[in-house]
Amino acid sequence: SKRFYSSAKKLTIGLIPADGIGKEVIPALSSSYSNSPNFNFIELNAGFEHFQKTGTALPQETLDRLKNECSGALFGAVSSPSHKVAGYSSPIVALRKNLDLYVNVRPVVSVASNKDPNQKPIDILIIRENTECLYIKQERQTVDEKTGLKVAWADRKISEYASRRCGKMAFEMALSRDKIRQSLRLWDTRPKVTIVHKSNVLSITDGLFRETVRGVKENDSMYDGVDMEEQLVDSMVYRLFREPHVFDVVVAPNLYGDIISDGAAALVGSLGVVPSANIGDNFVVGEPVHGSAPDIAGQNKANPIAAIRSAGLLLEHLQLHTQASAIYNAVDDVLKTGTFLTPDLGGNSTTQQVTDAIIKYLPD
Amino acid sequence: SKRFYSSAKKLTIGLIPADGIGKEVIPALSSSYSNSPNFNFIELNAGFEHFQKTGTALPQETLDRLKNECSGALFGAVSSPSHKVAGYSSPIVALRKNLDLYVNVRPVVSVASNKDPNQKPIDILIIRENTECLYIKQERQTVDEKTGLKVAWADRKISEYASRRCGKMAFEMALSRDKIRQSLRLWDTRPKVTIVHKSNVLSITDGLFRETVRGVKENDSMYDGVDMEEQLVDSMVYRLFREPHVFDVVVAPNLYGDIISDGAAALVGSLGVVPSANIGDNFVVGEPVHGSAPDIAGQNKANPIAAIRSAGLLLEHLQLHTQASAIYNAVDDVLKTGTFLTPDLGGNSTTQQVTDAIIKYLPD
Ligand SMILES: CC(C)[C@H](C(=O)O)[C@@H](O)C(=O)O
Ligand SMILES: CC(C)[C@H](C(=O)O)[C@@H](O)C(=O)O
Repeated sequence: SKRFYSSAKKLTIGLIPADGIGKEVIPALSSSYSNSPNFNFIELNAGFEHFQKTGTALPQETLDRLKNECSGALFGAVSSPSHKVAGYSSPIVALRKNLDLYVNVRPVVSVASNKDPNQKPIDILIIRENTECLYIKQERQTVDEKTGLKVAWADRKISEYASRRCGKMAFEMALSRDKIRQSLRLWDTRPKVTIVHKSNVLSITDGLFRETVRGVKENDSMYDGVDMEEQLVDSMVYRLFREPHVFDVVVAPNLYGDIISDGAAALVGSLGVVPSANIGDNFVVGEPVHGSAPDIAGQNKANPIAAIRSAGLLLEHLQLHTQASAIYNAVDDVLKTGTFLTPDLGGNSTTQQVTDAIIKYLPD
Repeated sequence: SKRFYSSAKKLTIGLIPADGIGKEVIPALSSSYSNSPNFNFIELNAGFEHFQKTGTALPQETLDRLKNECSGALFGAVSSPSHKVAGYSSPIVALRKNLDLYVNVRPVVSVASNKDPNQKPIDILIIRENTECLYIKQERQTVDEKTGLKVAWADRKISEYASRRCGKMAFEMALSRDKIRQSLRLWDTRPKVTIVHKSNVLSITDGLFRETVRGVKENDSMYDGVDMEEQLVDSMVYRLFREPHVFDVVVAPNLYGDIISDGAAALVGSLGVVPSANIGDNFVVGEPVHGSAPDIAGQNKANPIAAIRSAGLLLEHLQLHTQASAIYNAVDDVLKTGTFLTPDLGGNSTTQQVTDAIIKYLPD
């Protein structure tokens, strides 16, 4: 196993494999650091299977240990019940809320081996608001008195507070991405933030999101160098597929961000390579964008790259930049070489083989 | 101009160009029938520009004349104000509601010239619920007393009533599409309905949509031959781009349907070729899926095909099947030939040239 972290302080990282292929990609990742002098892993419970066994999808103990013992965590994936199950509620949504992980950052970058030197690669950073919108899960069911038929309602909440901190994150990241691009003399384009909304229909909620994010730039000259544009969510999905390389940072309310990031993943080879980080002021949880993939679970077929890149994001947000870069580069090397790829990328390697290949590219 | 309709009865069709390229694609279409003994066109007002002039986006007169004089209508496209405008509300959303046009049917078919004889073409019919979800536009803004910051709320409504009639339409259309495929001996696949939802988060609202649509099949042996599957909306967008030809009929709540259909349009060349029909029990309004495209408005560049195909859908729902087929075939011929294409399809023909080319292929 490799040494990543040269400081004396040993970081404790919570691992929450949860369901399906989460149970394969998280161990694949952690096994390589099992003797690391720098990390201390503790495995924690959550998920639909845990709910089926115990009646709880996100145990209090998991939350307590994350808060009291861990510097950050990695979450695997969670299964959706195939029919309505009373009392079950998504543990990842609850985790984001409980730890106030207010943005979900999703970098979508074209797979290295596909890079055409003449074309700007796809390099989008999706900033998804992570605490509100329809994800507040305030729902209720009523019955129409006349017809006896059911009517269901959900509340959608958009606040100035949440939209602003999410917008700030977008402009900050646009600036820091630009700094890196400039230092590498890559793609001489101005940084840009694209605001996604549907204010032509939702003038009050999405109108508030839009105006608040616009205000972040308009009220702070620090962001003068960052361009700003808007896209209606339907048009955004269309343009994402027509001209993905024109986007830089994309900021969106929770549900639109969820949909857009899965769509963007289709453009870079597979959902199996797209990582995310749920970020708050005090905690960060890495999480692959893919789901629990029950159809391939337990078959050693799952692509570990999304989880491994999510570990990179986690390290980055713990300020371990060298170690994070080492991970990103090792993954890129494996993708560029193209010898070890899981089936989602057209190969026939196993989860373990891809993991081993990545480990080989890591510095000692 | 051509004769489409051989019956003695003259049908009155309302034309509502509205904004932007709507003012080009609707006249392009109607000009070719201007001397038709079968149709009588009346032009009606609506749109954002009309709102700016008069303070009303959808005049009562337009509604009254549609209801009292017309057999159906064609709507162009509507512009979104670039900033919040007090009192403005989307006229197309209001029209759908007012005429109880409860589904929006969007056929997304791969452009004829791209057809590979070895691969099943893209041929998806999106059935979008058209009256509820977040489109009920019940929104309000409050202020957080402690912080003084704004908080906005929207209601999302999903009813058993609306979900059921929408689900019924989906299964009916799956059957009738299958009948056509069988008679043409095309693509020997079973008809299938894919239900799109996000019930892993919205267990009550999307749970109701899902269970109601499932119930349509489960409670009626007529639909035994139609397969049924489900996709979470995020995963749906991903799969749409990875394997679009596996989908047949796709049924979704309003907002998801909006997003998915724009996404699907990216797969068949351009938004400029995708038509829709807003269908109710008593009225139908054809409407291209594209928007008002202010960036190209007034330049004679807009693709008229989405509007012309929408006219085909309108005729189809008025039971004028021969005339509808003539339109579809003429459009396919122009696309297959590839001589006259607007810039969105990589050509440099004008709106008028494409329209003229289509008219040439119509039977006398
Ligand atoms: C599992 C589900 C609740 C979750 C979400 O919608 O946020 C997932 O799709 C994701 O994107 O992390
Ligand atoms: C213009 C807008 C209100 C409309 C919608 O969202 O329904 C449009 O996007 C559409 O798809 O017809």
